[in-house]
Amino acid sequence: MIEHIPHCRRLGMEVLEIGPRRARVRLPYRDELVGDPARGVVFGGVITTLLDHAGGLAVFASLSELKAIATLDLRLDYLRAADPGRDLMGEAHCYKLTTHVAFVRATAWERGPDDPFASCLGTFMVGANTSISPMARALRSGGAG
Amino acid sequence: MIEHIPHCRRLGMEVLEIGPRRARVRLPYRDELVGDPARGVVFGGVITTLLDHAGGLAVFASLSELKAIATLDLRLDYLRAADPGRDLMGEAHCYKLTTHVAFVRATAWERGPDDPFASCLGTFMVGANTSISPMARALRSGGAG
Amino acid sequence: MIEHIPHCRRLGMEVLEIGPRRARVRLPYRDELVGDPARGVVFGGVITTLLDHAGGLAVFASLSELKAIATLDLRLDYLRAADPGRDLMGEAHCYKLTTHVAFVRATAWERGPDDPFASCLGTFMVGANTSISPMARALRSGGAG
Amino acid sequence: MIEHIPHCRRLGMEVLEIGPRRARVRLPYRDELVGDPARGVVFGGVITTLLDHAGGLAVFASLSELKAIATLDLRLDYLRAADPGRDLMGEAHCYKLTTHVAFVRATAWERGPDDPFASCLGTFMVGANTSISPMARALRSGGAG
Repeated sequence: MIEHIPHCRRLGMEVLEIGPRRARVRLPYRDELVGDPARGVVFGGVITTLLDHAGGLAVFASLSELKAIATLDLRLDYLRAADPGRDLMGEAHCYKLTTHVAFVRATAWERGPDDPFASCLGTFMVGANTSISPMARALRSGGAG
Repeated sequence: MIEHIPHCRRLGMEVLEIGPRRARVRLPYRDELVGDPARGVVFGGVITTLLDHAGGLAVFASLSELKAIATLDLRLDYLRAADPGRDLMGEAHCYKLTTHVAFVRATAWERGPDDPFASCLGTFMVGANTSISPMARALRSGGAG
Repeated sequence: MIEHIPHCRRLGMEVLEIGPRRARVRLPYRDELVGDPARGVVFGGVITTLLDHAGGLAVFASLSELKAIATLDLRLDYLRAADPGRDLMGEAHCYKLTTHVAFVRATAWERGPDDPFASCLGTFMVGANTSISPMARALRSGGAG
Repeated sequence: MIEHIPHCRRLGMEVLEIGPRRARVRLPYRDELVGDPARGVVFGGVITTLLDHAGGLAVFASLSELKAIATLDLRLDYLRAADPGRDLMGEAHCYKLTTHVAFVRATAWERGPDDPFASCLGTFMVGANTSISPMARALRSGGAG
């Protein structure tokens, strides 16, 4: 599925695991993701991409039937700089699902799940648009799930 | 300055204007930024990158001397899908500056400033790290203006 | 309308103005709202109450017909302590309305609108519940508008 | 400690537990906390007060020495209406502490900890103000700790 989304594919993002209401995604470290070559700090937008995708997958993993979803809002806390040279992991949990809205918690880490460098709360609209979303489309056309 | 940050340069981001406490950045439309080729929807992470950068520049434009900054947290609201094929504009205003924290509002649009497709509130730490940030480093080494 | 909501009435909140997509609410200063008697700092929860209400009213002022609304999420930035002894003003603008979601910006101030002590972004569900919300109920039964 | 803060005392808030980096607070149900008498829905501002306090206590429980703290920003997600007639519990965890900033997660529930009705991410400034905060002051003068 992620392979069908150009920006994700270009970033090299991989789905590691999709389970009940949860998803885990990996972004292999690449020099071009770095904000500052001298410090090796990974870029804020890349972290958002990682967590937004893990979140969307966790929402899909919570639905009993395929529906379009769209990110409504995200809050990201940047706890510390990520270590340069390490793969980035994003893990999301859809902890509440209502008719129209899914609520997600997500964290990003590189050393281990108990030492995140970013934390996220987000909401996604579910089935809100008649047109199918990029994710749903990709999923339906043969993707990762 | 943005030209010194690989991910931004690769995205093709341009600084249009830096004024008192404000900054405006443009991201020329490119097919590879799109989430779903069939719909031309621009990618969430790209929008975050745009607004995070406009925000950081607005903070720099508010400081009386060059200091390191780091994004502490962002909240992004995705109001609607951006029109495919149009350049994306990000505009940020640093509306409050304290000793350690800068508060920023930002919006992203493609049709015009009064019709944003994304809205953002963020906080940045100012002078919090001894090591200089990517942005400050790039700015010092021959800046954005 | 606010007079119909016990917690607001008890706090002494007053609606000053409801216009197109906007609302302004006042909370007269009272000693009991203060977090720390020695410093006169106004309480965070009181500020949230103020902005949540201004926001809800701005959403109502944006609807062409009366619908139930419910706060979905709020982000509050506390820019500085409010001056003790002054009335608190909350102003909200519903800057985007979609079928199911309303997006609101709000600020709180005591000295003047250009010097806010708190800033807020929020989303409200519109018409999401079959049961009518507290605000809609109060509004219908003869409230502030 | 909470007894020293008039608004909290007036709301009837009680500290149940303060442990390593964690705090649990209870707000006994009272009719006057309700937004809509006909539905018994608890008020948004009350929930914020509950979670802001649980969060501040969790930060104090994480510090090795007493310092002033101040809420910098909060994001609150309202997952569902709370059941009328039940005591409200707020539980917070300070999951990351840096020199100047503490990061907190918190949830509010009435049925049980696994079924929250509100979720929160917040940041607190630590030791940022020379003047001591309401909480630190109350704590020092003999409070709940």
